Amino acid sequence: MSETSPASATANIGVVGLAVMGSNLARNLASREGNTVAVYNRSPERTTQLVEAHPEAGFVPAATIEDFAASLQRPRTAIIMVQAGAGTDAVIDQLCEAFEPGDIIVDGGNALYTDTIRREAAVRERGLHFVGAGISGGEEGALNGPSIMPGGPAESYETLGPILESIAARAPEDGSPCVTHVGTDGAGHFVKMVHNGIEYADMQLIAEAYDLLRRLGGLEPAQIADVFAEWNKGDLESYLIEITAEVLRHIDAETEKPIVDLIVDEAGMKGTGTWTVQTALSLGVPVSGIAEAVFARGVSGRTSQRQAVRETITAKPEAAPVSASFVEDVRQALYASKVIAYAQGFDLILAGAEEYNWAINPGAVAKIWRAGCIIRARFLNRIAEAYDRAPELDSLIADPYFAAEVAKGVDAWRRIVATAALSGVPAPVFGASLAYYDSLASDRLPAALVQGQRDFFGAHTYGRVDRAGKFHTDWSGDRREQQVSS
Amino acid sequence: MSETSPASATANIGVVGLAVMGSNLARNLASREGNTVAVYNRSPERTTQLVEAHPEAGFVPAATIEDFAASLQRPRTAIIMVQAGAGTDAVIDQLCEAFEPGDIIVDGGNALYTDTIRREAAVRERGLHFVGAGISGGEEGALNGPSIMPGGPAESYETLGPILESIAARAPEDGSPCVTHVGTDGAGHFVKMVHNGIEYADMQLIAEAYDLLRRLGGLEPAQIADVFAEWNKGDLESYLIEITAEVLRHIDAETEKPIVDLIVDEAGMKGTGTWTVQTALSLGVPVSGIAEAVFARGVSGRTSQRQAVRETITAKPEAAPVSASFVEDVRQALYASKVIAYAQGFDLILAGAEEYNWAINPGAVAKIWRAGCIIRARFLNRIAEAYDRAPELDSLIADPYFAAEVAKGVDAWRRIVATAALSGVPAPVFGASLAYYDSLASDRLPAALVQGQRDFFGAHTYGRVDRAGKFHTDWSGDRREQQVSS
Repeated sequence: MSETSPASATANIGVVGLAVMGSNLARNLASREGNTVAVYNRSPERTTQLVEAHPEAGFVPAATIEDFAASLQRPRTAIIMVQAGAGTDAVIDQLCEAFEPGDIIVDGGNALYTDTIRREAAVRERGLHFVGAGISGGEEGALNGPSIMPGGPAESYETLGPILESIAARAPEDGSPCVTHVGTDGAGHFVKMVHNGIEYADMQLIAEAYDLLRRLGGLEPAQIADVFAEWNKGDLESYLIEITAEVLRHIDAETEKPIVDLIVDEAGMKGTGTWTVQTALSLGVPVSGIAEAVFARGVSGRTSQRQAVRETITAKPEAAPVSASFVEDVRQALYASKVIAYAQGFDLILAGAEEYNWAINPGAVAKIWRAGCIIRARFLNRIAEAYDRAPELDSLIADPYFAAEVAKGVDAWRRIVATAALSGVPAPVFGASLAYYDSLASDRLPAALVQGQRDFFGAHTYGRVDRAGKFHTDWSGDRREQQVSS
Repeated sequence: MSETSPASATANIGVVGLAVMGSNLARNLASREGNTVAVYNRSPERTTQLVEAHPEAGFVPAATIEDFAASLQRPRTAIIMVQAGAGTDAVIDQLCEAFEPGDIIVDGGNALYTDTIRREAAVRERGLHFVGAGISGGEEGALNGPSIMPGGPAESYETLGPILESIAARAPEDGSPCVTHVGTDGAGHFVKMVHNGIEYADMQLIAEAYDLLRRLGGLEPAQIADVFAEWNKGDLESYLIEITAEVLRHIDAETEKPIVDLIVDEAGMKGTGTWTVQTALSLGVPVSGIAEAVFARGVSGRTSQRQAVRETITAKPEAAPVSASFVEDVRQALYASKVIAYAQGFDLILAGAEEYNWAINPGAVAKIWRAGCIIRARFLNRIAEAYDRAPELDSLIADPYFAAEVAKGVDAWRRIVATAALSGVPAPVFGASLAYYDSLASDRLPAALVQGQRDFFGAHTYGRVDRAGKFHTDWSGDRREQQVSS
């Protein structure tokens, strides 16, 4: 569009890296009116393959990075879709060489946000724009409409925004595209990281609900599939509940058993859950629900330890009697625990915003998660509304709507956590979420005793409820108290 | 001792940094036969002060680093006791300049083990020895006998070992000094970090026990002090239980109220608990008890959030009826949860040993924690015995003794976690520990469902219980299963 674009420049957007995610994103881009998509891959066979398989897309293939740059109108805009890591740095460097000041490089991979902050500064130094963009929704989302969380300089969003809006998922409620400029430099990848952390908690909560219904409720997978399908019509409506019903209903063709009984009970992970909890610890944000979900996957993979401990068990606990409303109790416990996972996740987003000076609008984040991404759910409208009502909300569970929802389910939640504990069915995220809620709700916490212990052995001092200042008791001496600061 | 020592060299050990910890450690060293202690501090007033206050110590004061070096016999051995961070690097650099190849520099601060690994390599490059040594026991321990966890090159322990053994605490059981060469480079600081992580869990568990006895058992602080004092005669005998009784018994002189009721209920932290959990996450070790303890401190400090949530609470749960044996139930739950915290901590130590090629003997670690440090406890003998019986133990709770102990208390533990959940008294570490135990003890975990979800939305594949290989179901297509790897 700019006068300086060479005559060969026919594309308004380019994609580098044509594995499944990159190919699907390129096809998505090409399918939207107004886009012409340049494509480049390190090994040219893949480029040829993609172009031949999809003549309808009108791709502009490039054999070299220089060709790729020449095929793009200015300001050039390219989305990198390569495996996160050192490869990303190499591609960024090549693009910086081939591109010119004012051009825009987008990293659509799952980069760690601190890498994105570093890369943004380095690319800016060279006069170009760098945008780290979280893209959620997997292969399917990339093709049909993902949820997109771009960070980077606000100016770049003027060019990039309309292109991303053209391919993003659209919220079922109002048709708005699931993309927004999240904040500067690493904000987009930070928010994508927290999205994934919440996803861990959400998945583990569903797994705990399933386990309780199975082991204590006595339901079979197909019956639990029906329960989830029913739940998917109400407050819990979400992609994860929907696909859980699908997985539970699926029967293995060969053995004619439910597939869930044939899958090895070890859950893998790729790192974003771990990053979320590590970051939360650095920023001092309690994310116990997400942490327990990450640990639960870790425990599942400790095969020899599980074997060794199982061999020591001689008597199993008797299942505690379940209430007549057990299924409904589980539903309420699941919903309340889910609210906690999101409350903790949004706390982390806001702590990140404060730490890195990002002007993140939490309501806008909730809105762009309503479609396209793995945690898409009806529930996110309620979160957006809560932050619209009170942008400075102290906690999601301090919002009147969520406070009332949790209060409505809290008795059932208590019964479920108690029944799980008595019956030996592990429900770590249900339990951690309830303990977190009860901690925030307590008038007084035994942290006072912890601080007393700390003063005893380490002279760490304490505050007093009845006056200002920091105090220390001479525990090993005459036990007199002295004020050590005002 | 070496022929190359100058005539002025009268000291066999030196201390750099004379704040409380350094001064106390220097006094401890000076009090042991055979030691002559050189002392140096950046601001010389502090050196003069220490020397004048303690003529009995026979300190050899140094005004400059060069004087300090000249006063030390070869191989020179100096312990740095400065605040961890950039200051440590500056002092190491000065000592490297003033010392000669073969001399030994010990960092006795709370350094992050990865910093210690880096420093050890850099100092070794210059021909000197660097030893990162964790020192636990606070000011009191530094003066009268700490637990010491040195890493660094094994050769340096030949010189350093006897000196450290002279000042370390001695185990009450067999009089052996609480110090051992933990492993090379950062092993000592790694183990000290995990020690502190376990300390967080131990303190929070005691706080939860207190809170349950207070809020549900209806006991007053003085009565709970009696309970803890009684417990301190049995399996729970430990320094932390002992000082908790002291704190609970203490009455504020002015208000005549128990001090625990006057201390602001916000527990501070200085970072080693956070490091422990972050490291565990990096190494894939579930340390849910320690994590919940770190989060509990975090929650306690979120004042405005606590306030906001409290204001939404309209009805408090009724306290669930407690059993006649409630106090004993709490004791058993505390003991079982404590076993879990240590099991997770030792898992982390062994994972660190594997990651960094440290030949750590877990039984030896348990032994040097029996005195001098904050988590000293009778219980550590049982851990040492467990690892003596089976050095390759899969988990502490797979050891026959601990398995039997946990089995003995498990019903009480279940009752306590259930009662806490029903009554709204948060017991996050009690609950997380039980869920961890039940996860390891479960024949089947719902991780199978999580892996099914992951295969559905991300084609992450799954293993099958009935045959080898990795499989993927074409969820969005005809739902046929294909084997994707062998």
